[in-house]
Amino acid sequence: MLPEPIRKFIDAFSRLPSIGPRLATRLAFFLSGLDKNNLKELEDAFAGLKKIGRCPNCFFIKSGGHLCGICADPRREKNVIAIVEKETDLISLEKARVFRGNYLVLGELAESGTLTSVEKLRLEHLKERIKKELGDKAKEIIIALSPSTLGDFTAELIKNEFAGMSEKITRLGRGIPTGGEIEFADEETLKSALESRN
Amino acid sequence: MLPEPIRKFIDAFSRLPSIGPRLATRLAFFLSGLDKNNLKELEDAFAGLKKIGRCPNCFFIKSGGHLCGICADPRREKNVIAIVEKETDLISLEKARVFRGNYLVLGELAESGTLTSVEKLRLEHLKERIKKELGDKAKEIIIALSPSTLGDFTAELIKNEFAGMSEKITRLGRGIPTGGEIEFADEETLKSALESRN
Repeated sequence: MLPEPIRKFIDAFSRLPSIGPRLATRLAFFLSGLDKNNLKELEDAFAGLKKIGRCPNCFFIKSGGHLCGICADPRREKNVIAIVEKETDLISLEKARVFRGNYLVLGELAESGTLTSVEKLRLEHLKERIKKELGDKAKEIIIALSPSTLGDFTAELIKNEFAGMSEKITRLGRGIPTGGEIEFADEETLKSALESRN
Repeated sequence: MLPEPIRKFIDAFSRLPSIGPRLATRLAFFLSGLDKNNLKELEDAFAGLKKIGRCPNCFFIKSGGHLCGICADPRREKNVIAIVEKETDLISLEKARVFRGNYLVLGELAESGTLTSVEKLRLEHLKERIKKELGDKAKEIIIALSPSTLGDFTAELIKNEFAGMSEKITRLGRGIPTGGEIEFADEETLKSALESRN
């Protein structure tokens, strides 16, 4: 009973992350009700994503140019590399305006705890980078994975992979977040906070 | 720091219902990572919505043809009209395969409890329909609005508007939903269920 274009839209968009059939249906009706100008604006925004590529160095997104803005920036330290899981993690770190090194975007961690083929390829690529551009040794690799069981496990795998390839291999500090309350912190966090007291 | 196309996408899509900046960002990264074929499929699905128009009779969506499939169907009773709030309500009723009349899609009810200009226009249009096509009187108008305070209030407004223009003006029956448990039904529902016992 639904017109073909609506059915197609629902079908295609309900496969996107966090968008199930319900939201896709709602969007289809909402978008159908928009005037042509508003719909055009959204369509153009959508089509614009085709211009997005991946930086061959750190695998962050980029548009135009050979490298992404961070890798192309000569003021950033090439021999300090933060390994992050997702693009959004990189963005959060950049917003903190403290880190001045380069990145490697690893890609989403698999629930299984093993490295996916994408992760393996990217880690191999980082090894190449270290060999070719940094004279076989980085100054520091910061494993900036979330402090979860999966993150901890993967961090250990990475640490072993890069043994001997970096002067230091570190992880982000753990403790009570700014604004957080000791009363509500879990045991693991309190343990970390005590250990990293300063 | 984000490439322009990504920023534009996030900006445009975070304004859609149920999609805030977080989900828009997530989608932007996800879509950027898709291969061109998959992205093209979604783009086409999106562009297809431009073919969607509104039925000038009942205001349900349609693609191609002057009227929507329901209004164009000669087997459906023209003089029994169900007034629904949203397209999705119409779809739910159609799925029940019991109603064989026509519809009026009213448009989303305003929280203020007053009729919006869209609702007023559509109700006026229904009056015209009744005058011109049904000889001044419908057989039945079923006000199929949700049994909420807002729905009840709007139903009363509509009842007054159409007084004398229909042999019957009814609302959907209230009671305990199939599969529902009496133990967990609220008082209003139980009251309705008792009143409509059969």
